[in-house]
Amino acid sequence: MNGAESLIRTLTAHGVDVCFANPGTSEMHLVQAVDAVNEMRAVLCLFEGVCTGAADGYGRMKGLPATTLLHLGAGLGNGIANLHNCRRAGTPLINIVGDHAIHHVAHDAPLTSDIEAVAKPVSAWIRTSRTSMGVGLDTVDAVQAALAPRPDPRGGISTLILPADCSWGEGRTQPKGPRFDDTITPLPVPDSDIEAAARLIGPDTMLLIDGSGLRQEPAIVATGRIAAKTGCSLYTPTFPARVEAGPELPIIERLPYFPEQILSLMASVKRLVLVGAQAPVSFFAYQNLPGYLVPDGCEVTTLAHRHEDVAKALEDLASALDANAEPSRPQGERPPAPEGGLSARAIAAIVAARAPENSIVAADSGGGGAAFGVMQRTVPHSWLNLTGGSIGGGGPVALGAAIACPDRPTFALLGDGGAMYTNQFLWTAARENANVTTVIYSNRQYNILEVEYRRLGVNEIGPRAASLFDLSNPDLDWTKLAEAQGVPGTRATTCEEFDAQLTQAIAEDGPHLIEAVL
Amino acid sequence: MNGAESLIRTLTAHGVDVCFANPGTSEMHLVQAVDAVNEMRAVLCLFEGVCTGAADGYGRMKGLPATTLLHLGAGLGNGIANLHNCRRAGTPLINIVGDHAIHHVAHDAPLTSDIEAVAKPVSAWIRTSRTSMGVGLDTVDAVQAALAPRPDPRGGISTLILPADCSWGEGRTQPKGPRFDDTITPLPVPDSDIEAAARLIGPDTMLLIDGSGLRQEPAIVATGRIAAKTGCSLYTPTFPARVEAGPELPIIERLPYFPEQILSLMASVKRLVLVGAQAPVSFFAYQNLPGYLVPDGCEVTTLAHRHEDVAKALEDLASALDANAEPSRPQGERPPAPEGGLSARAIAAIVAARAPENSIVAADSGGGGAAFGVMQRTVPHSWLNLTGGSIGGGGPVALGAAIACPDRPTFALLGDGGAMYTNQFLWTAARENANVTTVIYSNRQYNILEVEYRRLGVNEIGPRAASLFDLSNPDLDWTKLAEAQGVPGTRATTCEEFDAQLTQAIAEDGPHLIEAVL
Repeated sequence: MNGAESLIRTLTAHGVDVCFANPGTSEMHLVQAVDAVNEMRAVLCLFEGVCTGAADGYGRMKGLPATTLLHLGAGLGNGIANLHNCRRAGTPLINIVGDHAIHHVAHDAPLTSDIEAVAKPVSAWIRTSRTSMGVGLDTVDAVQAALAPRPDPRGGISTLILPADCSWGEGRTQPKGPRFDDTITPLPVPDSDIEAAARLIGPDTMLLIDGSGLRQEPAIVATGRIAAKTGCSLYTPTFPARVEAGPELPIIERLPYFPEQILSLMASVKRLVLVGAQAPVSFFAYQNLPGYLVPDGCEVTTLAHRHEDVAKALEDLASALDANAEPSRPQGERPPAPEGGLSARAIAAIVAARAPENSIVAADSGGGGAAFGVMQRTVPHSWLNLTGGSIGGGGPVALGAAIACPDRPTFALLGDGGAMYTNQFLWTAARENANVTTVIYSNRQYNILEVEYRRLGVNEIGPRAASLFDLSNPDLDWTKLAEAQGVPGTRATTCEEFDAQLTQAIAEDGPHLIEAVL
Repeated sequence: MNGAESLIRTLTAHGVDVCFANPGTSEMHLVQAVDAVNEMRAVLCLFEGVCTGAADGYGRMKGLPATTLLHLGAGLGNGIANLHNCRRAGTPLINIVGDHAIHHVAHDAPLTSDIEAVAKPVSAWIRTSRTSMGVGLDTVDAVQAALAPRPDPRGGISTLILPADCSWGEGRTQPKGPRFDDTITPLPVPDSDIEAAARLIGPDTMLLIDGSGLRQEPAIVATGRIAAKTGCSLYTPTFPARVEAGPELPIIERLPYFPEQILSLMASVKRLVLVGAQAPVSFFAYQNLPGYLVPDGCEVTTLAHRHEDVAKALEDLASALDANAEPSRPQGERPPAPEGGLSARAIAAIVAARAPENSIVAADSGGGGAAFGVMQRTVPHSWLNLTGGSIGGGGPVALGAAIACPDRPTFALLGDGGAMYTNQFLWTAARENANVTTVIYSNRQYNILEVEYRRLGVNEIGPRAASLFDLSNPDLDWTKLAEAQGVPGTRATTCEEFDAQLTQAIAEDGPHLIEAVL
């Protein structure tokens, strides 16, 4: 067994068995190993940002890392934007990056680059293997680091760089040992902290919740009980990685986007309790607005850090408060689908009306993101948000989620600008017959930029500036872009058309794309 | 005038007046400045790898940097792969990367990242502006660094990071001063080195030429005279950034790709003279093959380093040798266009038969690259090669070259796998009505990977490995992919069809795409 095979077999022994791959010559022994190890599923992507985004979506749904397989620093570089999002999501992920043989690096051949330097801004753990016999142990460390609870803002991304001679040299597999599980268990929050929090929560308190507090149903139910008992308000950050939501669960509102909106909301908050979340800050800096959005006089307490057991802390807090009463639940009914002209609001209502129970919804634009408020009141689903602000995440994240959960209908709600960065996810969705329905909010502009430009105080946008926000001239034809990559595509200009096309996409297996012309 | 406007005005004062842009919110003041400064042309790209590749192509043709305009670390990350190619090409280029206001970075908002760390592997010069009044001077330094002759393998890439408060604060422009030109003049090669080289060149000598030695006609003519006088052989590296070629110029052959081919070629070379080039090394490491490809006993001499005046060194060498005789020139005639089934060889012959004089040709795959040998014998053109091995460069490079030289017909000869990474260049080509004819070598596989896989000694490729080389299932439909982005697309399956479609594409203004099904 060579080093490459020891890597793949060690991964599968640890439950890591999906690889989003875009290999090159330096990864040929790894391809050979994938061919030899049936337990590893390899999914080809035609651009590395699709690999990293899909691995993020997979990890958000599974709680286990997928791997990428990337080609030296240039391949890893193409994956950086979605690794940035993944790092903000705190998703476990393992990059496997092939490199030249160790003795070849000094020749500075054309593809040679400083891979560790490329990896550094987006990795919590980096190692370049130095011997083929050590690759198995390096792999265990990579998996452990990806799953280890950590306060590090670079999340759970491990990057293992494999020189070609460590691939082709003799290797050995490392089995999973009992020590492994101990090292990945999050720290419990001390009882004294739970009790202290219980004493201070009241109607003027905001619980800001993230991480497992938004993912595990008992924790979410506990938040509703806490709110019912104390009158506190419940919020997620503006960009949570994943929220389990639906009419049977208590409503946890999402913080708005613009700083003045958050400031207005926070004005009446006297106590902010952070539960796996960070205190709210402005997404961008603006002249004459603060960056830190907690008002003077508001007391900030941390119930649980992101590396601690956030979900259990919420359940313990409910117990400490004797908050056993059933929380009020919205028991929403499916709204009737709207009719007439299409808008982001109408799309949200139609998706909320038609999405099957237990759907997964990924969004990476303002238009798509606005669907959350409707959907959490109408249909049980997992919501996957853009996290790091780098648009182009949503399509790959939906693809990875659909591969993690093939029985759950998955929706990608994407702006046209954002979807272009990583349009290649469509091809992989077609190849894998992934059950992803992609909705393109086709407003033919970078709408957020025009909004932000006007916030500078500019009332008249000159033609040269306007051209930089404009995605028309030429108009993108999303049905052709989808069909070019094997995905059936349709175009909707009215609610009725959109409703009919969405209904058909849901009824049929495999990927679909609907261009919703706004 | 604010800092952003001082940046744009300082750039145009130094002759830098094209910006390949994909801005975000942190760049809104820069957009405002572009709107205010008519001398700056902004070209919107829908993916940052198109920005960086196009700036590379522009810089290769103009000898002056274009800028990119990118959005924080994630936007720069998307540009890394083509910056890697650009760095290997030694092209001057200036990245302008917006960042949060300095006081906002500590809040660790979602898009915050270590931009300097992202820039480091692909930049020769990096600075984060610290005051708005200093932005003008920072800009001069960025331009100077991009143009300064340097041995640094990270080429002429400057990355200037502009915090939002340095954009919106008061700034001042910096005019171009006389000192500037002095600092960008390459060093001359000492006469003693020229004379030493003249003494050792003979029939068993190979001149390996790169940089300005392949770009400036007097230097290229000088190489032919040197060869005629001494019997030496003339070669470019395997991946030269730009070569001026055609039937009126002496033939400089290109080194082959695989190490055993280069070893075979070098076996009879007793003296290797490097003229702006590095000694040949294997692109990848292979078991049982050396990485350094100069045979034992071959004497290696450097006539000119890449930061020196390579072109003048060749002219001086010809003078020192009294090599005044007209070199033999191939005086090639246009070959007849082949008929029947399409192949990479047939495509090369048809492009060579039909390309107008003074065309520009960019290639980034083995199939496309093979056209060089035919074209240099038949039609005067500028050849732009993939340099750093990161496929996906060719389309954006052709786009940038066409914007630099709008009167010259430009061709992009691209593999289907490579073209997918950066397919968004098509949209910008349509918007700018760039005169780029894209030929997709549609073999529906990563052919080089299958070749490299077999080189491992594998004779039967298993289905799981084969799936990672295979671009069918589903087949990519390039005509739809082009039309989706506003570029007329056709498909050719025979030489006759390809010839007719190419002829029409050449006759019509603006971009075209031909999918050549192999």
